[in-house]
Amino acid sequence: MKRRIYLKMQELGVAQDLLCRRYDPGDLVGEEEIPSRNAAARVTSRPVFARISSPGFHSAAMDGFAVVAQSTFSARDDSPVSLKIGQEAVPVNTGFPLPEGMNAVVMIEHCLIDKDEKYVLLRSPVFPWQNVRKVGEDIVATELVFPSNHLIAPYDVGALLASGNPTVRVWKRPIVRIIPTGSELISIDDGLPEKLEPGKIPESNSAVLAALCQASGAEAMVDPIVADEPEAIEGAVREAISSDAHVVLINAGSSAGSADYTVSIIEKLGEVLVHGITIMPGKPTIVGIVSGKPVIGIPGYPVSAIIAFEQIVAPLLHKLQGKERPLPVTVRARLTKSLPSRAGIEEFRRVVAGKVGESVVASPIKKGAGSISTITKANAILRIPLASEGLEEGAEVELELIRPWQSLEKTLICTGSHDLSLDIIADFLKRKSPAMEMASTHVGSLGGIHAVAKRLCHVAGTHLLNPDDGSYNVSYVKKYIDKPALLINLVYRQQGLMVRKGNPLSINSIADLTREDVTFVNRQLGSGTRVLLDYELSKLGISPEQIRGYDNEEYTHMAVAVSILSGKADAGLGILSAAKALGLDFIPVVEERYDLLVLKELLEQPPVRMLLECIEEEQFKETVEGLGGYDTRDTGKVMYEHE
Amino acid sequence: MKRRIYLKMQELGVAQDLLCRRYDPGDLVGEEEIPSRNAAARVTSRPVFARISSPGFHSAAMDGFAVVAQSTFSARDDSPVSLKIGQEAVPVNTGFPLPEGMNAVVMIEHCLIDKDEKYVLLRSPVFPWQNVRKVGEDIVATELVFPSNHLIAPYDVGALLASGNPTVRVWKRPIVRIIPTGSELISIDDGLPEKLEPGKIPESNSAVLAALCQASGAEAMVDPIVADEPEAIEGAVREAISSDAHVVLINAGSSAGSADYTVSIIEKLGEVLVHGITIMPGKPTIVGIVSGKPVIGIPGYPVSAIIAFEQIVAPLLHKLQGKERPLPVTVRARLTKSLPSRAGIEEFRRVVAGKVGESVVASPIKKGAGSISTITKANAILRIPLASEGLEEGAEVELELIRPWQSLEKTLICTGSHDLSLDIIADFLKRKSPAMEMASTHVGSLGGIHAVAKRLCHVAGTHLLNPDDGSYNVSYVKKYIDKPALLINLVYRQQGLMVRKGNPLSINSIADLTREDVTFVNRQLGSGTRVLLDYELSKLGISPEQIRGYDNEEYTHMAVAVSILSGKADAGLGILSAAKALGLDFIPVVEERYDLLVLKELLEQPPVRMLLECIEEEQFKETVEGLGGYDTRDTGKVMYEHE
Repeated sequence: MKRRIYLKMQELGVAQDLLCRRYDPGDLVGEEEIPSRNAAARVTSRPVFARISSPGFHSAAMDGFAVVAQSTFSARDDSPVSLKIGQEAVPVNTGFPLPEGMNAVVMIEHCLIDKDEKYVLLRSPVFPWQNVRKVGEDIVATELVFPSNHLIAPYDVGALLASGNPTVRVWKRPIVRIIPTGSELISIDDGLPEKLEPGKIPESNSAVLAALCQASGAEAMVDPIVADEPEAIEGAVREAISSDAHVVLINAGSSAGSADYTVSIIEKLGEVLVHGITIMPGKPTIVGIVSGKPVIGIPGYPVSAIIAFEQIVAPLLHKLQGKERPLPVTVRARLTKSLPSRAGIEEFRRVVAGKVGESVVASPIKKGAGSISTITKANAILRIPLASEGLEEGAEVELELIRPWQSLEKTLICTGSHDLSLDIIADFLKRKSPAMEMASTHVGSLGGIHAVAKRLCHVAGTHLLNPDDGSYNVSYVKKYIDKPALLINLVYRQQGLMVRKGNPLSINSIADLTREDVTFVNRQLGSGTRVLLDYELSKLGISPEQIRGYDNEEYTHMAVAVSILSGKADAGLGILSAAKALGLDFIPVVEERYDLLVLKELLEQPPVRMLLECIEEEQFKETVEGLGGYDTRDTGKVMYEHE
Repeated sequence: MKRRIYLKMQELGVAQDLLCRRYDPGDLVGEEEIPSRNAAARVTSRPVFARISSPGFHSAAMDGFAVVAQSTFSARDDSPVSLKIGQEAVPVNTGFPLPEGMNAVVMIEHCLIDKDEKYVLLRSPVFPWQNVRKVGEDIVATELVFPSNHLIAPYDVGALLASGNPTVRVWKRPIVRIIPTGSELISIDDGLPEKLEPGKIPESNSAVLAALCQASGAEAMVDPIVADEPEAIEGAVREAISSDAHVVLINAGSSAGSADYTVSIIEKLGEVLVHGITIMPGKPTIVGIVSGKPVIGIPGYPVSAIIAFEQIVAPLLHKLQGKERPLPVTVRARLTKSLPSRAGIEEFRRVVAGKVGESVVASPIKKGAGSISTITKANAILRIPLASEGLEEGAEVELELIRPWQSLEKTLICTGSHDLSLDIIADFLKRKSPAMEMASTHVGSLGGIHAVAKRLCHVAGTHLLNPDDGSYNVSYVKKYIDKPALLINLVYRQQGLMVRKGNPLSINSIADLTREDVTFVNRQLGSGTRVLLDYELSKLGISPEQIRGYDNEEYTHMAVAVSILSGKADAGLGILSAAKALGLDFIPVVEERYDLLVLKELLEQPPVRMLLECIEEEQFKETVEGLGGYDTRDTGKVMYEHE
């Protein structure tokens, strides 16, 4: 089993330079002449000079009468000048050429016309060239309209045409050939098969890379999927290099595994400049040159592929087009939790940021570069520099936004315990306002109460039972919150035991969890479900040691359900909707109260206001009840007011 | 001559609301199902749910060997566990499915393989599910992937495909029909005619509007030019309304002039919501509804058309697509000169902004909405609110950027006297770095020296003669600059008399300017050319009163040349290149020195450094000498060091 190592590992800046400094604007792509009408977002390959002046003649800058200014000099309030319409005063609209010999325009508002419409009376003079746009006032023939390497804005199209340039020479768009490789991949472009063959996954990176190419102004050509065979991949690369494409991306096979052929193929056909970059995600990126064309090995994990593209390919595509990359919009934020990091690696952590009170908070998403959702659920990237060993909770950091800035003000930061009705809220919020986003992180009920106290979220979902009196949430709020706050009911819900379909082990009660043949999966300490379980166990006099798997902890209902579906565990405590979503059986155990906790000072923030409006709606309540296992009799009701 | 007035004038916010609140996302346009691959930048019309889980099977998260975790529990450094390859330990690469029954992956780095490659030796245990991506770790079947009205980012395409959605339902792109009207307009799409008919101008607004539509995610259909005839325009509007188009723009004819038919046509066919908006440019905008479709009367002046589109049409197009408009990027800046403004009108002033030292300065461009160059030369917009009566020089203002943010750091703010070699510099700077912009404003040599003193520019061009000793610039710098600075020579140039081609009045010397039949056009007080003229006049003993037109002032060489070309004046003092550009004759009078003044503290700012590099280049000097009338013997040389 042969294994390569990264022989040409580089830091990001070095890797970028090694590639980009080889090329000047227009290299590889060359120029083309296109209609100016279609030139927005393109870049001039040569300076553009005006072929005509604009205006090309003296023209009226106002609606009114064109006159010879000198003939109006004696006009006074008490002795108006009278000019014959059509001869001494010619009606003109804005933009009309001045009649030969005339050199001023009297605004229509200053003209008195006799009732026969033969004469116009003026009570004050105009000076020469008043209300006249002179030849070349805007653009003078021969002047430089745009220099070379100018990014043509939509407005600029107007200047091109007004200066007599029906066409313009621009750098061609780079063509990027994308080669998806991997025997595990199938295309679902023609439809999702009834059942995916085991081990097969839908190919999606090529579509993301193509969309990113287009966002960089390049054209993308996506090849059919190539199997993990060195000859097949080499053939595809040779074909791509000899085609019209200017840049070639080989997706996956770029790390150092036994089936990672990309680096040897590039070595064979050309030169490897970089193999491995000290970034995460994106480490197994390859930068090579074959026949003068850049050939980039893009890692296979979706987020790695995106970071590699954004950091290596996008700067190149911009350079070839003579474009500067727009700087990311940045914002300062407080980190909601500590983030350890490895020195020597620059990390690109995806975060969800939102404005809570006057400051922005950033809640990190889990790391897995294999999970596309770690970036699609994010609205910002936190770059942790090479030298850093991590950041503390509450640290002030700079984020690069990947969604519009407004997303910060329209992001509802929700944490605490998870409930599926939160997903319904997310959809209802979006319907009310397209820009509304909801970020849910799940830290359990108690973690949520702490986050509210530190203003690190807008609301937290909580279903904490007080084992002393069977009450919900209030005693915890009294203990931990020192500002005015409200507990607002979201739902009552059934908690129960989730088991595999058909309940093969016949698990019918909490007591059955002590059986030798049953492996349990638990929720984490501090979660409401955990407190509920412990309460039920103590009522039954069962001790945790009697339950196999009591120490297996998961953070969400869905994660518990997945554990059971996957066979890792046989039973877990959770909610009906999670069981239904994955086709598990459900044995109800108890109804519990699930509230939202919110500081009063945040009640007027738009995301909070919209959340509260949303849960009051009948349609919302119906949708939640439709999930099964829910009761909305108190939804939206203030259960406790904390001063 | 019938004249309308604005009967339905509204403030901007009211006008926007009147239009936008009539429509919800998806109204007029409806939805369509498109391949997910093409869905970037589109907006979901329905929530998207996952049809499959991702991963759909337990898969290796590392390259290595899949094992049953339990079989490794006894592995120790001093008593390794040996597993048979192919049976107890199966080689897997990242992403491979785990063989049935196996539940962990040992990283290849932790495996010792015997030389026959039959067994793998493990020195430490792995725990269950270590290095395994479990089913649904990224996306769980049935979960909400995106809510409705979600703007699909390039990354999101990956989540669509990974969740088993080869297609997605999105709002259709709005189709905007653009009707250019005006008998003065000609299309130059098929080429610029040898000679434009008098009074004709190239139609360009429809191309700008179409480009702006596309930037808003809409499709544009541009009609042929319609003459200023009410029947023809009405016909075009009827045809547009009955077509597939969702929004109709009638360009021009929207003000209150005698040939402004738009409002009566909309009134006849439907309803006028707004006629006139209290903004400038853009006042004569009409908002109407015909058969449920928005019909917008867009003013004819190019900048008015752009502002009307950006403020009225763009928000509508975003709303129809369920998109939030990206907020403009803003920046604080100091104003380089006072700006009066009329209360009751919200002004959109175009400015050139650049970073001078640590702060940003904004230099307003002249107002004319008829001049497209007032926006194509700008990199930001300064909005002066309705209630304001103006802003003072040095006032701190907020700008909305219309070019990338980097343009601020890469804008060379140059002021003072104008010289055509500055246009050459602009082009050379662009060639060195595509993002480099140069903003030249012309306030005369003395104005430039004051601007340098107040750090309101990087460099100023100056050619101020000291009439006492015939020296250039130094005495003025000593008098006005109190920080270390350099005077660096740009060029020596010929100043001379510009006259009409063929010199019909036989003007051959300064002395001829006193002739009765000669009208002169002067440069403004404080300009180097003015000082030079006064110096030459005093040498000849001529007094200003002897010269007709001595009080006619223009601010640039080109403006003087235009005055002569247009017949407003017969002669003016200026430089050869300006005369050549407009085909005027030129009678040399004197050679003068033209220097650049720069504060030493700004020498390391990139725009200044690049400027100085640029003027050192041989090619630059050759190009300038090629203009005629220039000598570059001292170009780039420090002429005076001021402490």
